[in-house]
Amino acid sequence: MSEKIVTAGMVAIGDELLSGKTKDRNIAHLADMLTTAGIELKEVRIVADETDAIVEAVNALRTRYSYVFTSGGIGPTHDDITADAISRAFDLPCEHDREALDMLGAVFQSRNIEFTDARKRMARMPRGASHIRNRVSVAPGFTIGNVHVMAGVPSIFQAMLDWLLPRLETGAIIHSETVDCPYGEGTVGEGLEDIQNAHPDTVIGSYPKFDGKNYSTQIVVRSRDTQAIQRAVKAVNAMLVEIAEENPA
Amino acid sequence: MSEKIVTAGMVAIGDELLSGKTKDRNIAHLADMLTTAGIELKEVRIVADETDAIVEAVNALRTRYSYVFTSGGIGPTHDDITADAISRAFDLPCEHDREALDMLGAVFQSRNIEFTDARKRMARMPRGASHIRNRVSVAPGFTIGNVHVMAGVPSIFQAMLDWLLPRLETGAIIHSETVDCPYGEGTVGEGLEDIQNAHPDTVIGSYPKFDGKNYSTQIVVRSRDTQAIQRAVKAVNAMLVEIAEENPA
Repeated sequence: MSEKIVTAGMVAIGDELLSGKTKDRNIAHLADMLTTAGIELKEVRIVADETDAIVEAVNALRTRYSYVFTSGGIGPTHDDITADAISRAFDLPCEHDREALDMLGAVFQSRNIEFTDARKRMARMPRGASHIRNRVSVAPGFTIGNVHVMAGVPSIFQAMLDWLLPRLETGAIIHSETVDCPYGEGTVGEGLEDIQNAHPDTVIGSYPKFDGKNYSTQIVVRSRDTQAIQRAVKAVNAMLVEIAEENPA
Repeated sequence: MSEKIVTAGMVAIGDELLSGKTKDRNIAHLADMLTTAGIELKEVRIVADETDAIVEAVNALRTRYSYVFTSGGIGPTHDDITADAISRAFDLPCEHDREALDMLGAVFQSRNIEFTDARKRMARMPRGASHIRNRVSVAPGFTIGNVHVMAGVPSIFQAMLDWLLPRLETGAIIHSETVDCPYGEGTVGEGLEDIQNAHPDTVIGSYPKFDGKNYSTQIVVRSRDTQAIQRAVKAVNAMLVEIAEENPA
């Protein structure tokens, strides 16, 4: 079993996410995809369309994690400032990429659409960046260093991630098993702490649910070692049997 | 018109949000509620159930914004470490709050439920904190300094926010108007930049939509000044008429 650990941070960029105008859909998708691939998402920051905020977040996360993924702000309008901000974070010039200009120019020409300066903005990236392709849009995302810059439109973000993920180094997958528990956290709390202490090779999470009347709990056991998960889940189930015996219906 | 500006940051706490196990529902709700109330949400961080990560995020945001709101990690289980982390961020002892103990104790006694050490964890908070009440659960959230610590369960988070928000200082509301535009961003990009430059008392955001075949754009004009919004929206509509005339169907 590989013990290599690969980590990631995400920066979701956009005023609309902070004003409530748009509900983000990329964070949960990235979390799902990275977990499955064996990359551990450690932190997400949602920042406004402000250069300083983007630079700070990207620089904080890129030195700390194996990869940083960003969403949003790479379109053709004046509020799309991600390429400039990422360039500044790396202290690189932001310029029109020759290959991206050629690709975009050819497509617009074939559709008889003028290749305006606004449209050319979509070819801007830090000098030396490589492209992130996707099957939906001709405009590429880009990778510079360990930072992967992708679109905010969910279908395009997803398509870029589909292209990118198989090309990244991944680590040992964190597996998980969920035990649905009919009792509230107050009932299982002490037993669960004992089980966590007895199974330090797992991380046991406890997630309360409330249906408006009753509490229940999802107990999630996570580990890179599937046998360790099985041992801890067995202990959780034994605890639940014990509670049921103490609390006959 | 009040020109006072009140800002906020949010820290959403929980491994489950980063593993994809749970889709966060509190961020978008908080964004909506704050925008309506006249508090500008400037940044959100999602962090794992790790003390250092929580401390760092809370300390970074509480010095920067008027308020910080947190969600998650205040229940009775071993992985609920938010009260300890917030205490450490403020360099205060984390201890059982007398009033919270009394409230919780009374409820458990009335239901004939043992008031275990796990359940008593829900009364822990930094010394000097005040309670955030809610109509769903007896266990309170708490406020220390400008940091408001709330539950992760969405119905309880919402109930705590309902109680808290009318008690906070708010600022000038940022209003917005949305123009649904049938053209892609490439078509409106240059005109929109001119309009933004001519209307610096507004912030004009452009949000691309893609239905799998065609692009369209939501143009959102925001400002604390509603008349400024009307002037910019008028300019946007004039631009759209011009584009339509240049592109007869």
